[in-house]
Amino acid sequence: MNSKQDSDKPEIILTGDRATGPLHLGHYVGSLKQRVALQAIHEQTILVADMQGLTDNAHNPKKVSSNILNVVADYLAVGINPSITTICLQSKLPALAELTMYYSNLVSISRLERNPTVKSEIQHKGFERSIPAGFLTYPISQAADITGFNATLVPVGDDQLPMLEQTNEIVRKVNSLAGRIVLNECRPLLSNASRLPSTDGKNKMSKSMDNAINLGATEKEISAAVKSMYTDPNHLRVEDSGNVEGNIVFTYLDAFHPDENYISQLKKHYQRGGLGDGTTKKILEECLQDMLRPIRVRRSEFLSDKAQLIDILIKGSQVSRDKTEKVLFDVKDIFGLNIF
Amino acid sequence: MNSKQDSDKPEIILTGDRATGPLHLGHYVGSLKQRVALQAIHEQTILVADMQGLTDNAHNPKKVSSNILNVVADYLAVGINPSITTICLQSKLPALAELTMYYSNLVSISRLERNPTVKSEIQHKGFERSIPAGFLTYPISQAADITGFNATLVPVGDDQLPMLEQTNEIVRKVNSLAGRIVLNECRPLLSNASRLPSTDGKNKMSKSMDNAINLGATEKEISAAVKSMYTDPNHLRVEDSGNVEGNIVFTYLDAFHPDENYISQLKKHYQRGGLGDGTTKKILEECLQDMLRPIRVRRSEFLSDKAQLIDILIKGSQVSRDKTEKVLFDVKDIFGLNIF
Repeated sequence: MNSKQDSDKPEIILTGDRATGPLHLGHYVGSLKQRVALQAIHEQTILVADMQGLTDNAHNPKKVSSNILNVVADYLAVGINPSITTICLQSKLPALAELTMYYSNLVSISRLERNPTVKSEIQHKGFERSIPAGFLTYPISQAADITGFNATLVPVGDDQLPMLEQTNEIVRKVNSLAGRIVLNECRPLLSNASRLPSTDGKNKMSKSMDNAINLGATEKEISAAVKSMYTDPNHLRVEDSGNVEGNIVFTYLDAFHPDENYISQLKKHYQRGGLGDGTTKKILEECLQDMLRPIRVRRSEFLSDKAQLIDILIKGSQVSRDKTEKVLFDVKDIFGLNIF
Repeated sequence: MNSKQDSDKPEIILTGDRATGPLHLGHYVGSLKQRVALQAIHEQTILVADMQGLTDNAHNPKKVSSNILNVVADYLAVGINPSITTICLQSKLPALAELTMYYSNLVSISRLERNPTVKSEIQHKGFERSIPAGFLTYPISQAADITGFNATLVPVGDDQLPMLEQTNEIVRKVNSLAGRIVLNECRPLLSNASRLPSTDGKNKMSKSMDNAINLGATEKEISAAVKSMYTDPNHLRVEDSGNVEGNIVFTYLDAFHPDENYISQLKKHYQRGGLGDGTTKKILEECLQDMLRPIRVRRSEFLSDKAQLIDILIKGSQVSRDKTEKVLFDVKDIFGLNIF
C-alpha cells in the first residue's frame, strides 16, 4: 500500500529543448507526446534552453533568438497546456547561471572530457581543441537546470544518460559538502518510442539537412518530404517483393498510423510483392496530413499572437525564478555565502 | 588642450581581491595604497571576489566565507572610503555569472589552456588534469567582472597582464558580433611598486606559509615576523660587511620607512660593516609597528561592528547590481535575447 502511494506521488519533471530550430516529428514521437501525457499527472516544467543553444551558435545567435517563440508555439500546438505545465526561458533565470558557476568548481575538466555524449557531439561538430568552453561545460549547466528545479524525473533518450550521471555526481558532491540532502538525485524517464529516423534514412534529423518534417510543415512540404522518402532501393517494380526493414515509409507508418492491424497487413502485402511505393507513400502522406493539419493550424494561430506567447513565457519564468532562487539560496548556504 | 581634457577624464576602475585570507603588507604595497590615491580621482569599484575564491576552495568554503568581512575591514582600515569607492560582493551580482555564461561560448578550451597566468597557477597548485572547470575558466569570469562594470582601467601586477589580454579578446569578439562598440577595452594600470617578498625570502606570501605580515597583525606577530626575517646568511659578525641585495629587512625598509636618506645611510653602514642585523631589525620593527598600529586599531573597530560592514557591502552591491545588469542587457541584446 505504501509503495502504491509512493509510485502515485507526483514527480518533479524538468525537460526542455534547445531553441535552435522549430520542432519536428522526431521531437513529437520522442518527447512531446509523452509530455502531454505527463503534465496531467506530474509537476512538469519545460525549459526553453536559449543559453544552451548558444553554446555552439554564439556566432549565429539569430538561430536561437528567432526560434524561441516557434518552440513555444510548437508546445502549445501539440497540446502542452501552460496552465498545468510551466514553460520558461532559461536566460530569464539567473539562478541557473549562478548554480553553474558554483558547480563548475566541483567538476574537473578531465571528467567533462570523458562525457560520452559531449565526446560524440564534439566529434560530430568537428570542434577538436577549438571547442568553446561553454560547450565543453554544458553538462554542468544542464545539471544546474535539473537541480535548479530539484527535479526527480528527467525524460531523456538513452544517449543522454551520461548527462544525468554527471548531474547526480554533482548532487552527491553538494550533499556531501552540506552533510545532508539538499538536492535530489534525479532518475531518467526513458521513452519507449524508438528514435524516429530522418526522411533520408541516413543522417540525424535537422533543418539544415532538409530531412525532417517540422510540426508546422505546410501541406506541400509534407507531400514533398514523403515523396522523397527512402524506401527499399531493390524494390524496383511493383510486382517485386519489398523490404520493410529500414524502409522509412513503414517506420513512419508504424510511428504515426492509428491502425496497427492495417499496417501489419500492408507490410505483408509489400513483402510478397504487388504493392508499389507510390501507394504506401500515399497512405503515409494522408496519415501525416491528417495528423499535422490541426497542429499546423493551431501553431499558426499561436504564432499570430506573439504577445500571448511572450506572456506565457513571462508567467512561467516568474514561477521558475522563484523556484530556482530558492535552490540557489540553499546551495549558497553550503558555501556560507548568505551573509546578507 | 583636448588631450589634456582626455587625460583628466575620470577612468572607470575595477579592482578587487579573492576573499581567501586577510590582506597583508604585500597587498598594501602592491595595490591598497594605490587604491586609496585613485579613489579621489577616478570612479573606483572594489569587488570582493568570493566566487573566484571558491574556484580552488570549493571543498573548504569556510576559507572564503570567513574572510569576506575581514577583507572589507582591511579596506576601510587602510583608508578606502566607501562613500567614494564602491565595495561590492561578487556573489551578489548575478549578472556577472550570466555574462560568464555568454562569454564562455566565445573562448575555446585551448585558448584557456594557453593562458600563462593560469598555466603557472595550475602547476603551482599541482592540479594537472584534475583542474576544476571553474578554475580553468576563471579568466572568463574575470572578464565578466571587468566588462560588467565597463572598466577602462584595471590595476594589476605584470603577472596578471595575460588576464587583461583575455578580457580584451572577449571585448573585441562581443563588439564584432554587435557591429558596434558595446564594451570598453581596458588598459592595465601597472603598479610601480615592485612585488614585496615574503618574510622568508623564498615563497609567495601566504597565510598557510606563515611568511606574511597581515594588516591586522598583533604587536607580537609583527615582532616575531621581523625577528625571523631573512637577511644576509654570510653576515655572521657585526663587524662583517653585509649584503643589502636580497636582504628582506632592507627590502621592507625601502618599502615602508618614510625617510629615504636615512635608509640610504643605513645601507652604506651595513655594507661597510659594523651594523648588526639586530639593529636593522629593530629599526624595521619600530617602523612597521608605527605604521600598522593605527591600521590594526581601526580594523578591529570595524570588525567589532559587523552590521556596518555588511551594510557597506549591501549598498555597494546594490549600486553594482544596477551597473552590471545594464551591461548584461546590452550583451543579451546582441544575442537577441531581450524579448521580454
